[in-house]
Amino acid sequence: MNKEVEIISWFASQSRLSPGDYPIGIGDDMAQIQLADGTSVLITTDMLLEGTHFDLAQATIEQVGYKAMAVNLSDCAAMATLPIGAVCSVGLPRRFGTDELRQLHKGVTGAADRYNCPLIGGDITRWSADAPALAMSISMLSRPVNCRPLRRSGAKPGDVICVTGALGGSSKGRHLTFVPRIAEALAITQLAHVDAMIDISDGLSTDLNHICRLSGVGARVEAKLVPVSPDASKTPDPLSAALNDGEDFELLFTLAPTEWETLRKGWRLTTPLTYVGVMTGDRSVVLVSADGSEAELVPAGYDHLSQ
Amino acid sequence: MNKEVEIISWFASQSRLSPGDYPIGIGDDMAQIQLADGTSVLITTDMLLEGTHFDLAQATIEQVGYKAMAVNLSDCAAMATLPIGAVCSVGLPRRFGTDELRQLHKGVTGAADRYNCPLIGGDITRWSADAPALAMSISMLSRPVNCRPLRRSGAKPGDVICVTGALGGSSKGRHLTFVPRIAEALAITQLAHVDAMIDISDGLSTDLNHICRLSGVGARVEAKLVPVSPDASKTPDPLSAALNDGEDFELLFTLAPTEWETLRKGWRLTTPLTYVGVMTGDRSVVLVSADGSEAELVPAGYDHLSQ
Repeated sequence: MNKEVEIISWFASQSRLSPGDYPIGIGDDMAQIQLADGTSVLITTDMLLEGTHFDLAQATIEQVGYKAMAVNLSDCAAMATLPIGAVCSVGLPRRFGTDELRQLHKGVTGAADRYNCPLIGGDITRWSADAPALAMSISMLSRPVNCRPLRRSGAKPGDVICVTGALGGSSKGRHLTFVPRIAEALAITQLAHVDAMIDISDGLSTDLNHICRLSGVGARVEAKLVPVSPDASKTPDPLSAALNDGEDFELLFTLAPTEWETLRKGWRLTTPLTYVGVMTGDRSVVLVSADGSEAELVPAGYDHLSQ
Repeated sequence: MNKEVEIISWFASQSRLSPGDYPIGIGDDMAQIQLADGTSVLITTDMLLEGTHFDLAQATIEQVGYKAMAVNLSDCAAMATLPIGAVCSVGLPRRFGTDELRQLHKGVTGAADRYNCPLIGGDITRWSADAPALAMSISMLSRPVNCRPLRRSGAKPGDVICVTGALGGSSKGRHLTFVPRIAEALAITQLAHVDAMIDISDGLSTDLNHICRLSGVGARVEAKLVPVSPDASKTPDPLSAALNDGEDFELLFTLAPTEWETLRKGWRLTTPLTYVGVMTGDRSVVLVSADGSEAELVPAGYDHLSQ
């Protein structure tokens, strides 16, 4: 188990939430609070750190603002929920003045306008020391549509495993400009009953293992079916890039084969949906290579807490 | 106008929120989203930075976790709303391991348990460079009780100005251990109709100026009535400390004189409520000294964005 999974599992084990008031707690893409009969709200939070999540030598400040919103919007998509508002807190390096703050704001509000999720509040602070770098945290609210929020834990043996788009090589630039799959999530859940969903932030290998662990099932992924992005194709090991790079922010979901047929036939969006394997009844997560050999699909994506 | 007010006013001016869906937007202690008839949720966010908001030579890691929750709880109190859940994102320095993370968690969940506002999600990240320090952002949800959420903008000429507790000298340690005035806010709004409220995070002088600016009114504060904390009394200029130090996290509110009489007579909590002045019809914010001389009450509290 990676370090991040370990500590988050521990946090979740410390949590005592009443399921009536908090249908979804720690450990999914968003938490859910029931406010009244039939009315609930979901919340997620993501922090971006200069050096870890972006490099200001390669990204513009506006792109950083966009990415901070987009990673949260991707969480809303992962639950098949509709974003309704965001708050943003920033820790500014001393070198940042009003101009840099406005560029950051432009990136945030650009995403807010594009995905109809307004910036409704925030907190602006500044490091007192010279050394520290830009830290940015956005929290986002959403509400359910079409169906109950989709969880990581609902996958069933026999389910088809699908992904949107193509995977790998996001660090070449796509991690700053990706389109969060909100429209896709809503279209998918309008057409079919989905059992489990997650967005691929840490890499297919890691995120599929999350679904398996939380659903108590296994998976078999066919290597030859994994959609490899053009960016990943240019790397020495395209399949490994597609499986492990992370920050794809594509959707990974599972559904019954009959639902997959309905979805496939009804699909009208240009974003591809790709069948990559099936969920199984045992606990093993297996990669079937093109030559038919099998190996454990090790969660080799990004571990935020590894040293 | 201080730098922070300037930039937040600019952000607010860029915002185009439909008042039906977003009754309260940028510029108050919390934003409000209307989810359904009669059901709304409020959200606030605050970031704490090592070196700016705490010094790990003086504060324990657990205290930092507590403070990160308490500053948000204080925002919930400032709107007279009930906290219902929090999410926490942290940017960890590389020197932090599992032990430090558990201490931080203990501080957060200690406050969560004490004020009945569970931690329901979060994001843990780590700086890639050695230099950066601990950054911690909490976002908190609340819901209205007793009355509509209290805004900074509702003060009226003739209103009495009140504060809870005593002010100044918080940096001697109280800023790490203060009690957010949730119980007080709920008791106040149960007893009386309040026109405007804010929590004193940047100092009475600055926060009263916020109320005046946003309400379009003025204020006269009687220096001799300002409750000076024991910590502030030990400083060379206790009144100035009480007016300007900030991080008191006491409530500052205004209400009609008849409502103040009702509140004063009905008050049963041990936290003192103190009358410190009156709101006026002009735009000036005035401090009346013990000798009767008058001077502008300059917002001299902490400006997060001053260089």
